[in-house]
Amino acid sequence: MLPRPVAVTRTGSGTFTLDAATTLGADPACAGVAHWLRTALSGATGLPLPGPAGPGGIALTVDPTMPAEGYHLRVRPDGIAITGGSPAGAFYGAQTLRQLLPPAVYRRAPVTAGPWTVPGVEIADAPRFGWRGCMLDVARHFLPVAGVLRLVDLLAAHKLNVLHLHLTDDQGWRIQIRRYPRLTEVGGWRAESMVGSRQHERFDGRPHGGYYSQDDIREIVAYAAERFVTVVPEIDLPGHTQAAIAAYPELGNDSGEPAAVGTRWGVSGRVLNVSDETVAFFRHVLDEVMELFPSRHIGIGGDECVKDEWRASPLAQQRMRDLGLRGEDELQGWFVRQFQQHLAASGRMLFGWDEILEGSLPPGATVAAWRGPALAVAAARAGHEVVACWDTAAYLDYRQSDGPDEPIPVGTVLTVADVRAFEPVPADLPAELRDRIVGAQCNLWTEHADSPRTVDYLAFPRLSAFAEAVWSAAGSADGFDDRLHAHLGRLDALGVEYRPPGGPLPWQRRPDAAGWPRDRADREAELAALTRNVQQS
Amino acid sequence: MLPRPVAVTRTGSGTFTLDAATTLGADPACAGVAHWLRTALSGATGLPLPGPAGPGGIALTVDPTMPAEGYHLRVRPDGIAITGGSPAGAFYGAQTLRQLLPPAVYRRAPVTAGPWTVPGVEIADAPRFGWRGCMLDVARHFLPVAGVLRLVDLLAAHKLNVLHLHLTDDQGWRIQIRRYPRLTEVGGWRAESMVGSRQHERFDGRPHGGYYSQDDIREIVAYAAERFVTVVPEIDLPGHTQAAIAAYPELGNDSGEPAAVGTRWGVSGRVLNVSDETVAFFRHVLDEVMELFPSRHIGIGGDECVKDEWRASPLAQQRMRDLGLRGEDELQGWFVRQFQQHLAASGRMLFGWDEILEGSLPPGATVAAWRGPALAVAAARAGHEVVACWDTAAYLDYRQSDGPDEPIPVGTVLTVADVRAFEPVPADLPAELRDRIVGAQCNLWTEHADSPRTVDYLAFPRLSAFAEAVWSAAGSADGFDDRLHAHLGRLDALGVEYRPPGGPLPWQRRPDAAGWPRDRADREAELAALTRNVQQS
Repeated sequence: MLPRPVAVTRTGSGTFTLDAATTLGADPACAGVAHWLRTALSGATGLPLPGPAGPGGIALTVDPTMPAEGYHLRVRPDGIAITGGSPAGAFYGAQTLRQLLPPAVYRRAPVTAGPWTVPGVEIADAPRFGWRGCMLDVARHFLPVAGVLRLVDLLAAHKLNVLHLHLTDDQGWRIQIRRYPRLTEVGGWRAESMVGSRQHERFDGRPHGGYYSQDDIREIVAYAAERFVTVVPEIDLPGHTQAAIAAYPELGNDSGEPAAVGTRWGVSGRVLNVSDETVAFFRHVLDEVMELFPSRHIGIGGDECVKDEWRASPLAQQRMRDLGLRGEDELQGWFVRQFQQHLAASGRMLFGWDEILEGSLPPGATVAAWRGPALAVAAARAGHEVVACWDTAAYLDYRQSDGPDEPIPVGTVLTVADVRAFEPVPADLPAELRDRIVGAQCNLWTEHADSPRTVDYLAFPRLSAFAEAVWSAAGSADGFDDRLHAHLGRLDALGVEYRPPGGPLPWQRRPDAAGWPRDRADREAELAALTRNVQQS
Repeated sequence: MLPRPVAVTRTGSGTFTLDAATTLGADPACAGVAHWLRTALSGATGLPLPGPAGPGGIALTVDPTMPAEGYHLRVRPDGIAITGGSPAGAFYGAQTLRQLLPPAVYRRAPVTAGPWTVPGVEIADAPRFGWRGCMLDVARHFLPVAGVLRLVDLLAAHKLNVLHLHLTDDQGWRIQIRRYPRLTEVGGWRAESMVGSRQHERFDGRPHGGYYSQDDIREIVAYAAERFVTVVPEIDLPGHTQAAIAAYPELGNDSGEPAAVGTRWGVSGRVLNVSDETVAFFRHVLDEVMELFPSRHIGIGGDECVKDEWRASPLAQQRMRDLGLRGEDELQGWFVRQFQQHLAASGRMLFGWDEILEGSLPPGATVAAWRGPALAVAAARAGHEVVACWDTAAYLDYRQSDGPDEPIPVGTVLTVADVRAFEPVPADLPAELRDRIVGAQCNLWTEHADSPRTVDYLAFPRLSAFAEAVWSAAGSADGFDDRLHAHLGRLDALGVEYRPPGGPLPWQRRPDAAGWPRDRADREAELAALTRNVQQS
């Protein structure tokens, strides 16, 4: 099983076999989980699994005295009992039951006639962390709804419970805002798709774009909720906003040329101005975002804001004098606070990258610590919740090996084993601040992933390793390789085009064509440049 | 509704509204259809629709005295009754019921709270043709399993019932054959992906590949069968076999250089030799294909075989002398017959492109007439079944307009209206041969479709128009534009990125970049070259 449960007791030869007579039922509290499990199992098995649960069937119940996301799973010849601390716990028990069946159970239609036998077992399990997330960047390359729903299913199969959607960036704005239609009409596409690592030589000249309508967002949110995944939206500001400025030039600083939606990777110098009108604009944007996303956390990004335009802007300099701010970092702090207050008035919590610590943010935000454990400690000390996601452990766009075949040689090497070894609690965090580490997430940036197939290659199986790092007890990686080997069979059945342990498949390999560096020095120079781009703050 | 049913009677204000109390049940004969409909409706509505059918519910029954694929649908305030001539007919009635609901019913999770109201109506319906197909070329660009299953759902939503999978070609071999692993190990990928229309300037340098494992195939076949779609496989031979020859050079003619999997579009001159060993090889291949595909029809392609290698081959010339054949066309006829006999011995029927008429093929094959109605007439006269699919009416890779924005300017212009006007029965077909036209299919070649998004753009909404041409009574296109307009709302809810009636969206548009022709004369020359490539036989 992956992630590894807290306690597993094999109870010998007494197995349970699902067949045409098997029933499946649930407490009213988890009727939705039973419906999900019936649908999930009936595709591959062809079994109806009718309710209610009868003797010798599968029964789902809730026991609120247990940890909310924990579950107990008991498989005996006379029936399967799953008890969750909440419907979410029952759902994770149901996901574990799927893993106890043959991998073909993950198919969407029958490829074998069974038998669908589950070993006799007792499992007691609960997650180590409450925030078990994956950030998906849909701005750099748009992923249509079907691909997002598929990813939700894959996250849920790994007992992850947060999908952080990076919806806006320099290179695209991906969410319909009724009040500001040009955000998607103009900001929703760019003139070039861009692939590969040397953009200038490798762009393919095709326009790229797309966005989610508000109904698309509602569908994604509702679909995820049925699988106990919370979708946390991010509207990145005040940097990473070139697409918004291209759509509404009045959001930018006077100093700039007219902006187009970005067509190169790296961080743009085009950032929002700090006028009252711009603050009001993005409060309106966040109002529509809050309508669509019930998530307690609402992301405002806050990362990598280049301050050059503010240094040259009379408006920004005047604002700083009026407010008595010392330096542009404090100005960014002021800007971010305008949204913290606005979100708080609606009962929401500000979520941002660790740059939101610059300036003076009142306690009570949630900080995604991407630049390393030191930032996590700083955020915890400052009274914030922390989601650990440093690039050296959780950036799934980083290269998986330093082999010459690796197709997307960006970042530093981050192997499956590296991700499994990810420890979200910094060693030097004072014990009394331990609870401020609410969890971790892996981050899937898509500059170099222009198709669902490439997303699969980057994400898997490292995302599986991440799931164990964030669910299972600390230091329990024993047997991980064997568990992962078995798990690859499930990914095969799910149609996930992961990177095989032996290296990329021929069609996943690095191109060997004009425009790609030919010798090692050239490649190293390229890697260094890319690593700088990604790591600059 | 689209395709338009044979007879629709609106019965006034007496509507039916689905709610939490609504039951859904079926005859044992169509329990699978009820299961499918429950799953299809419960995603968007959140309603459980439990069985069995009670008073005031939705009831599915079978009446074998009706046409097998026909159905009767009656919606009254006191219940919905769907009667099919077979489970397939009941399934089409259920698909029509979905179309009577608000478009949001096509979402996979709730985006509205309803109400889920169906107008009072009586519908009697049955298809005009029995073969209502779509050919998908997965050789030129591989479409992973999830994309194929999604297409199956879309075909079924349009009441199409055949998915013809073009599994092999010069540029790739996409089906695992246990006996010959190099077919996929070597033939399953090529060194370049290739996109755009001027390959030499536009290829993106990335390797491309992928294939379906035998379990993947079983999953696709079973998933399609549950939706009454028959998957008809095609192993193209003796031409379009460069990928196979790259994997097993002994299949080729001596005259050739060592072959690599093709990396340019157009027709390769590398073709199979006519040795006994090659015949035996492909009989073994077809044995595994027949194991996997229960379809009565098995495709062997037969199109566009360049005969130059045979003209230069002592083996081929000797074979012709031994058999008393006059010319290479007769040799191809002999070659194809080796497989017709082999398939017949397993109770299967040979299916091929209309070039199989060259040489002397015994009656009783099924011919996909792609080069025009004259070939359909010739095939019918020769005693074959005919599937109409001429390029001027059914090639969905052809450009949708002659506007400068059209992203993939190949072929001749084929608009939505052109496809809707497709008449599969040639005007000059003698009446007594009418029954030999078993139906039609649209063909989705993917030289220029390297992603599911581009497949969507090419296929929709023309595939919707095709569905009406092949299902609905001849000459009944009245109101098509209004029906299509309503149908686009369903495609939106399904996440289909179709071409809007007003032209491509900005990110669907033709690139305006180096390597693309800049002036009209240049573009016209390119179009002419491409059209020649596609049309050559």
